Amino acid sequence: MPEERVQRLEALVAEAELDLLIVGDLVRPGDSGPDAIANIRWLTGFTGTSGFALVGPGRREFLTDFRYTERAATEVAGAFERVTLEGRLVAELAKRLAGRVGYDDAATSVQSLAKLTDALAEGVDLVPASGLVERLRRSKDEGEIAAIAEAARLADEVFEWIAERGLAGRTERDVARAAQAQMRELGAEPSFPAIVAAGPNGALPHAEPTDREIGAGDLVVVDMGAKLDGYCSDGTRTFAAGEPGAEEREVYELVRGAQATALAAVRAGVAATEADAASREPIDAAGHAEHYGHGLGHGVGLEVHEAPRLGKKSEDVLVAGDVVTVEPGIYVPGRFGVRIEDLVAVTGDGFRNLSGTPKELRAVG
Amino acid sequence: MPEERVQRLEALVAEAELDLLIVGDLVRPGDSGPDAIANIRWLTGFTGTSGFALVGPGRREFLTDFRYTERAATEVAGAFERVTLEGRLVAELAKRLAGRVGYDDAATSVQSLAKLTDALAEGVDLVPASGLVERLRRSKDEGEIAAIAEAARLADEVFEWIAERGLAGRTERDVARAAQAQMRELGAEPSFPAIVAAGPNGALPHAEPTDREIGAGDLVVVDMGAKLDGYCSDGTRTFAAGEPGAEEREVYELVRGAQATALAAVRAGVAATEADAASREPIDAAGHAEHYGHGLGHGVGLEVHEAPRLGKKSEDVLVAGDVVTVEPGIYVPGRFGVRIEDLVAVTGDGFRNLSGTPKELRAVG
Repeated sequence: MPEERVQRLEALVAEAELDLLIVGDLVRPGDSGPDAIANIRWLTGFTGTSGFALVGPGRREFLTDFRYTERAATEVAGAFERVTLEGRLVAELAKRLAGRVGYDDAATSVQSLAKLTDALAEGVDLVPASGLVERLRRSKDEGEIAAIAEAARLADEVFEWIAERGLAGRTERDVARAAQAQMRELGAEPSFPAIVAAGPNGALPHAEPTDREIGAGDLVVVDMGAKLDGYCSDGTRTFAAGEPGAEEREVYELVRGAQATALAAVRAGVAATEADAASREPIDAAGHAEHYGHGLGHGVGLEVHEAPRLGKKSEDVLVAGDVVTVEPGIYVPGRFGVRIEDLVAVTGDGFRNLSGTPKELRAVG
Repeated sequence: MPEERVQRLEALVAEAELDLLIVGDLVRPGDSGPDAIANIRWLTGFTGTSGFALVGPGRREFLTDFRYTERAATEVAGAFERVTLEGRLVAELAKRLAGRVGYDDAATSVQSLAKLTDALAEGVDLVPASGLVERLRRSKDEGEIAAIAEAARLADEVFEWIAERGLAGRTERDVARAAQAQMRELGAEPSFPAIVAAGPNGALPHAEPTDREIGAGDLVVVDMGAKLDGYCSDGTRTFAAGEPGAEEREVYELVRGAQATALAAVRAGVAATEADAASREPIDAAGHAEHYGHGLGHGVGLEVHEAPRLGKKSEDVLVAGDVVTVEPGIYVPGRFGVRIEDLVAVTGDGFRNLSGTPKELRAVG
């Protein structure tokens, strides 16, 4: 698997006419951001926060600092020669560059590029080359889909646990904290801070749970995910804290229908805009067009937001191996919001749904 | 307080001959990294992850996106005009720039700078200007010291809780997880992932708790901190899981003495190198020079690592209002490690110790 991944990357490096590609974070070298951590993990298996890979014809090197020498020995596959950098990472990296060298301009600071350039030997050209590993990461293999499915299953357990404990009378913040604690208890980390938004808060774009006490009859949007072995899940259910009103029910069923319509449109070969449009039809027809102000979904993998994007302006076409969210919503200002989100793995003739929590409106008390 | 802070920043902007300074993250605009979050919070009070400040003669603006409009209204002080950006953040930011504009080249990606430059009006010059807010953040005011002290007090509670539960027979990972869960239970977040390193692991540079079961008599290095209201603490105690051996005791007392010696050297006006050297004297004299391979300490505030640095190569001089760690250690390869770390606020004639956990070697069972 690492061998196949590095070969696919080598093909992109050749296509970009590069002699070498630097994979890694040059914003805070030695303390990588989530995107670079994901790229390095996908390519080399390394799970730490300080690592670079150099890939090009005849070059497959993994570089880290002394803190991670041991971990690299355990984690980094034989495809890579392992090197421990001594001294300043940027200067040490510079010594190893030759020819036309691609770097990740989205994950390199202006300051680091200046330092790197100062330290270069004659004849080395640095070329912006972001997004190459991300492009490959988009298509998940069976092992990755299994890992994401397991994270989603664990999040389903937490959805059920939340529902069983009830919502009315607790604050949004309490519910979110308890959900995250339960997720950790089950051995995962939250893949992002859980959203718990009750009543009118469910219609607001802000993402953070408040000290609002959840009222009887409130609709409560719960959006959360687990991260397990590096892979993320993402899912949303909207519960009713007690018996919901007629309008709440109606809007809920509208979103549930729109989500089913969108799912029916998902398969390899379909434009992301088409799936997005499918989800909008029933919502627009019911007069709620302006209450559905976001895209249908996004890719999920080592990062909770990655390629492809499903929305009105996306240029992506779904392919087998995409793992994407399908999450239409309706937000009635000052009243309530409803969002229903599944995580699905796209296949040639449809999808495999990785989210198992039922979608019928559930009054959880 | 925000008024005073923005005035101090305006003075630095004038000193750098800038018409305007952009404060904020231009690596992933809309999803700031910890350094930019800290800068924005310190300057404006805003606690979200998408925000920019523009500061210059006659200009004090806080910019965010629609997700954070409400929060900005609550949090951002009257010193700033608040603006909600619509559309692409970089392009919207570009429209507001004029003259000689400083940007944070350490927190701006090459890609974002290119986009920003493309969108600029005629006559706007972008000038690298990182570190201005960081320089001001270094000196903490009374309110900040109180916030850090409260975070340290909470971490002390967790140290005591760990000691009472005992260590022998549990894995490093279990202890670390339990400590973090307890910290969250008390209302804080960990300021960094807790380190629990037992026996020979205590001598290794790697930072992550393993599945090693803590043995009877092991020394156990526990390094952790709390984050409360944005402010971090950082502290280390080395416990004995049962009755320690004679060499362990001896090395422990040596580190305890070195830490006391270092503390005695801490006061405003002292060079960071001098405090560092004070901690090394007793360790070097006992023949452990090569077993103390890191600096004495670092500043702590909105970030867990910030200015100043206390080490052999530091050029910093301590000033009143610095909050720094004092953390010598001895690491005997293959055997054990000892580190003792206090967090102190530097004053004119010494320091105020914010860490309250006793430093006598404690056998916790």
